[in-house]
Amino acid sequence: MKKSIVFLFVCVQCLMAAAQNNDSIVIKSIFSSALTSNASYENLRHLCKEIGGRIGGSPQAAKAVDWLHGALKAAGADTVYLQELKVRNWKRGFKESCYAKSNAGKKPLAVCALGGAMGTGKQGVSANIIEVQNFDQLKALGEANIKGKIVFFNRPADPTLYSTFEAYGGAADQRFIGASMAASYGAVASISRSLTNIKHIYPHTGIMHYFDSLPKIPAFAISTVDADILSTLVKNEPSTKVYLKSGCYENPDTISNNVIAEIKGSEFPNEIIVVGGHIDAWELGEGAHDDGIGVVQAMDVLRIFKELNIKPRHTIRVVEFMDEEMAQRGGRKYEEILQQTKEKHIAAIESDEGGFTPQGFAYDAGDNVEKRLEQWKPLLINYGLWLYNKGYSGVDISFMEKENIPLFGLITDSQRYFDFQHASTDKFEAVNQRELQLGGASIAALIYLIDKYGF
Amino acid sequence: MKKSIVFLFVCVQCLMAAAQNNDSIVIKSIFSSALTSNASYENLRHLCKEIGGRIGGSPQAAKAVDWLHGALKAAGADTVYLQELKVRNWKRGFKESCYAKSNAGKKPLAVCALGGAMGTGKQGVSANIIEVQNFDQLKALGEANIKGKIVFFNRPADPTLYSTFEAYGGAADQRFIGASMAASYGAVASISRSLTNIKHIYPHTGIMHYFDSLPKIPAFAISTVDADILSTLVKNEPSTKVYLKSGCYENPDTISNNVIAEIKGSEFPNEIIVVGGHIDAWELGEGAHDDGIGVVQAMDVLRIFKELNIKPRHTIRVVEFMDEEMAQRGGRKYEEILQQTKEKHIAAIESDEGGFTPQGFAYDAGDNVEKRLEQWKPLLINYGLWLYNKGYSGVDISFMEKENIPLFGLITDSQRYFDFQHASTDKFEAVNQRELQLGGASIAALIYLIDKYGF
Repeated sequence: MKKSIVFLFVCVQCLMAAAQNNDSIVIKSIFSSALTSNASYENLRHLCKEIGGRIGGSPQAAKAVDWLHGALKAAGADTVYLQELKVRNWKRGFKESCYAKSNAGKKPLAVCALGGAMGTGKQGVSANIIEVQNFDQLKALGEANIKGKIVFFNRPADPTLYSTFEAYGGAADQRFIGASMAASYGAVASISRSLTNIKHIYPHTGIMHYFDSLPKIPAFAISTVDADILSTLVKNEPSTKVYLKSGCYENPDTISNNVIAEIKGSEFPNEIIVVGGHIDAWELGEGAHDDGIGVVQAMDVLRIFKELNIKPRHTIRVVEFMDEEMAQRGGRKYEEILQQTKEKHIAAIESDEGGFTPQGFAYDAGDNVEKRLEQWKPLLINYGLWLYNKGYSGVDISFMEKENIPLFGLITDSQRYFDFQHASTDKFEAVNQRELQLGGASIAALIYLIDKYGF
Repeated sequence: MKKSIVFLFVCVQCLMAAAQNNDSIVIKSIFSSALTSNASYENLRHLCKEIGGRIGGSPQAAKAVDWLHGALKAAGADTVYLQELKVRNWKRGFKESCYAKSNAGKKPLAVCALGGAMGTGKQGVSANIIEVQNFDQLKALGEANIKGKIVFFNRPADPTLYSTFEAYGGAADQRFIGASMAASYGAVASISRSLTNIKHIYPHTGIMHYFDSLPKIPAFAISTVDADILSTLVKNEPSTKVYLKSGCYENPDTISNNVIAEIKGSEFPNEIIVVGGHIDAWELGEGAHDDGIGVVQAMDVLRIFKELNIKPRHTIRVVEFMDEEMAQRGGRKYEEILQQTKEKHIAAIESDEGGFTPQGFAYDAGDNVEKRLEQWKPLLINYGLWLYNKGYSGVDISFMEKENIPLFGLITDSQRYFDFQHASTDKFEAVNQRELQLGGASIAALIYLIDKYGF
């Protein structure tokens, strides 16, 4: 009896080793496929160069939806369909202008309107500047010092934090609610320092939010280089005036779409693994790192599975989400429909941290998933996937957390991300082909393991 | 008695935890110092833009030595001195030219002479092309097919390998000894495909070696884009001729220097921790990633220790090596003198894998060092330093292995390195400031731990 148990144990061990070995061969072939195919790079080029910046509600966003319909089919999907939704329809209007006027003369400053902000109108706004680092300072200064002025939020993203996402998070309140906070003390406009560690001349836009209970004022971002210049100007000469002009406005919500593509599962066609990125992107740049790369990496998962003839047991569903930047209507709509259909979802994976060298996966999931990732780590670490962090899997998929669906986000090297995010620098040329390809392969490898073993 | 043992145990545990905690504070301050200082980035700019490419024996290399003497002092060294040595003195001469001539007409091709190669002279060389992938093919073709022709080595660096250094290593024989191998069958010149994964129009140079027993022929590298074009041309029309011209030649060895700078140890001034990079760099580019970054990161270690008022117990010696690219005379000379002085060395650390996000350390050392790294890993992993690999610590320090000195090399993300190495693309602009700064901080943190705990 004892012997047979030992024998059984040995057999199980052998089978496990063989499975692991087979898995490592498949994963190697997934990476080889990604690293020898031009598909994702060419798709990114198309999205960036033939379509360009594509904020929700724009003709470019509609063009991207049309193109994706065909491109996802070409990548290997059985079926492609659209999921209709309403998106915010904010327009930048004419190009912003800004200059400081002091005794030294007129100094042009590089600014852009924040996403969702109201414009100044053609006459513009001209006022004195009051610089603050945070809302406590704003409060301390009070209405007496702020009324009629332009509030300049100039707290930098903390360069000493290793994670640039953490640095971004620590400074984002200025952009996000700074205008409303300033307006509550009578400011006429707000300017916030661009959310980036790099010193350069390009302003970074991004969504801002008005509180309904407070007056609305125009809201701008200024480049980090010009933030330093403006700060010096105002310190040297407090009576310096700044002129701001922006033409942004918001039209009524309009119709747009998520684009969905599937390879049907061979065993469990009604059980779904979602993978995606977001289609929309700020129109200052080309939406390369944010989030063209996520869109084309999800497409590459289909291409890789097709090329390697991997027949997934569960349905792999690419969801290219619309409107992440403005109001996340794509992610919300997908989850809203999911509540009705009650489709079983095994997992959802998003790539939205830029096309840099992958480092691992973030996850919002239970201990069973954590254990699985620990088991899979030896298969993935040879491809640089060493980091498995709880939390922050992805914005578009986050709405599915209430359905207890395990969520995953590709973690990539964050050091360069905010050199590009939401700025005119976010162009195709800023993406390295191998780093992009490795991201698609990393996601495909995770999906292969989820599809085979589940949680 | 038992109680007192428990008490002692608790005390030791507390002290260890406190030490770990203190170390994590110091290491955090090291990273903060690096990430908030412009020094290393400005030093790199100077090396790249004010001096430029600086191959051993060139006026630029001499200028770099002069500049480093002052700059290392400014960075915080107690003493700076030169270590004289003889370097090879190869010159590229006039700019290379190359074109293919077929029935389709004349097609210019982007080539450069390999380092150390003989030139064609002003008349150039014109011959038919024979393309091969490896030396076995060359042998199979034999003298009958090769004599009088230009051998074109066209085996790409394997794109499916995750480590681009591994891919480089797997294709480097073509560049390194291809000319001699081709000459042994009567070839009149050799062209080898540039050692890079990227498809671009820039040829990558690098050292080549002639066997004394074989005839010498001119040796070139061709850009990957033009390698593909040439291959197609020759396949379509085997009678295609290629014309090559290069003006390179070698002068007698000349005098140059390693530059050495020290902070004397407070407790063990005669026990030394070496840290460095190499000064020399191929003259096609500016030597930014290879290896300006290593030079300025070592300088930044001095600056960081000075700024934080860390007084090392052992002497920290920055050694900026000369002539890594041609004949490693700097590394050899340092070790030759070490053999005479018998100075005690605790460790030697090199940074020569490009200024990309650090991932960990390579080491050539015994089990005691491996154990220490394992102990230190929890302190370093928050800064992305997760990878500790045996072997390949660094070329310049490798000569010290015979003295059983523990050797370390900074491992950085390799995905982009060969987009730049040895090509005109290796410019200051190709280096990201934060990635550069993180490298200096990583090395400083390792030195702090070595200095405090030893092995």
